Amino acid sequence: MILRPTDTRTVVSRVVPARHGTAVRVRAGQLVRVTDPLGGQVGDLFAFVDHGGRRLDEHLSAAHTRGHNSRLFPAVGEDFVTAARTPVLGLVDDSSPGRHDMLIPACDPERYRLLGARQHRSCVANLHEALAELDLSVDTVPQPVNLFMNIPVAADGGLRWLPAPSGRGDAVTFVSHVDTVVALSACPQDLVGINVGSPTDLVLDVLDRP
Amino acid sequence: MILRPTDTRTVVSRVVPARHGTAVRVRAGQLVRVTDPLGGQVGDLFAFVDHGGRRLDEHLSAAHTRGHNSRLFPAVGEDFVTAARTPVLGLVDDSSPGRHDMLIPACDPERYRLLGARQHRSCVANLHEALAELDLSVDTVPQPVNLFMNIPVAADGGLRWLPAPSGRGDAVTFVSHVDTVVALSACPQDLVGINVGSPTDLVLDVLDRP
Repeated sequence: MILRPTDTRTVVSRVVPARHGTAVRVRAGQLVRVTDPLGGQVGDLFAFVDHGGRRLDEHLSAAHTRGHNSRLFPAVGEDFVTAARTPVLGLVDDSSPGRHDMLIPACDPERYRLLGARQHRSCVANLHEALAELDLSVDTVPQPVNLFMNIPVAADGGLRWLPAPSGRGDAVTFVSHVDTVVALSACPQDLVGINVGSPTDLVLDVLDRP
Repeated sequence: MILRPTDTRTVVSRVVPARHGTAVRVRAGQLVRVTDPLGGQVGDLFAFVDHGGRRLDEHLSAAHTRGHNSRLFPAVGEDFVTAARTPVLGLVDDSSPGRHDMLIPACDPERYRLLGARQHRSCVANLHEALAELDLSVDTVPQPVNLFMNIPVAADGGLRWLPAPSGRGDAVTFVSHVDTVVALSACPQDLVGINVGSPTDLVLDVLDRP
């Protein structure tokens, strides 16, 4: 899919401040775009099927998405699915170097305690806060889609934690196949070098196609 | 750790019939051994911290285990952890070729429906049945530890589904760091060639160390 500016109309455009998160309802057929304005910033994306309830119980599943596509991360044109195999998001465009991760869990308070930080913002806390603003909650924090996160897999299965290779203005665009709730956390990780320099803002847009 | 037969005493030894599952309570310090008597058979292993309740709410997390070890699958001497970073199992011995998987979810009825089979046993159903026999249940089916499952990752992130390379009598041994409930499913997959020939039995042993 080639997206020209004239093909879409921006419905929501939200700056996600560094180290914080946001959540938004997205209708079936709308596009979701995550932009890294300064480059080098990881974004943890979560997607839930919006069944209308306050408890989100069907989420984008990294494991089922891997099995579905026989690939660690979908290629452009492939879908992200739930455990029920509902296609929830499709990857339609990626102007970044295409390094993304679905192997590493969202950072959480325990992760930072193990790194020696008693108080630290985290993607897990950002998810809960962002959902709470929509009066929504989850029982389980799913494995996120870690956009721009560069975790290469060596032949022996070893994982390295490299800086996000996204450049200024790089963006990833998804189509929402069903009504969804999408949450995005601008990852606050500053103790492991996955973000370049200090954590920075991301931008989350929701776009209509006429 | 080198395990000699004289070092251990078998507490439980259970044949897990082909296409079926079992669950067992394991005390902290005991060993769990999964043996593939005929070779070429995948076993889906699940581990839960036994907090004493009937609902198992803390499970071995593949994602947190990957992050903890910076590795797709633990090496001998490394631990499997929960989302709370509780070390639940340690990998102490592996006489197989060492190809195991934590990327692919447990097979379930939907997987078989997509493969064209309306009625088919599955590792997810085996887990629920095995736990029910102990009057236990789970809200969420975790990503399993797929023993002997051979899913190589190509440089471009592509995954292949290859036959289990385990030979006759190959075994993997874990130490249980805490009181756990361990479930094992002898994977019934016979529509995708991950098991060699027809699905076969596995053996689950629990061993005491004097």
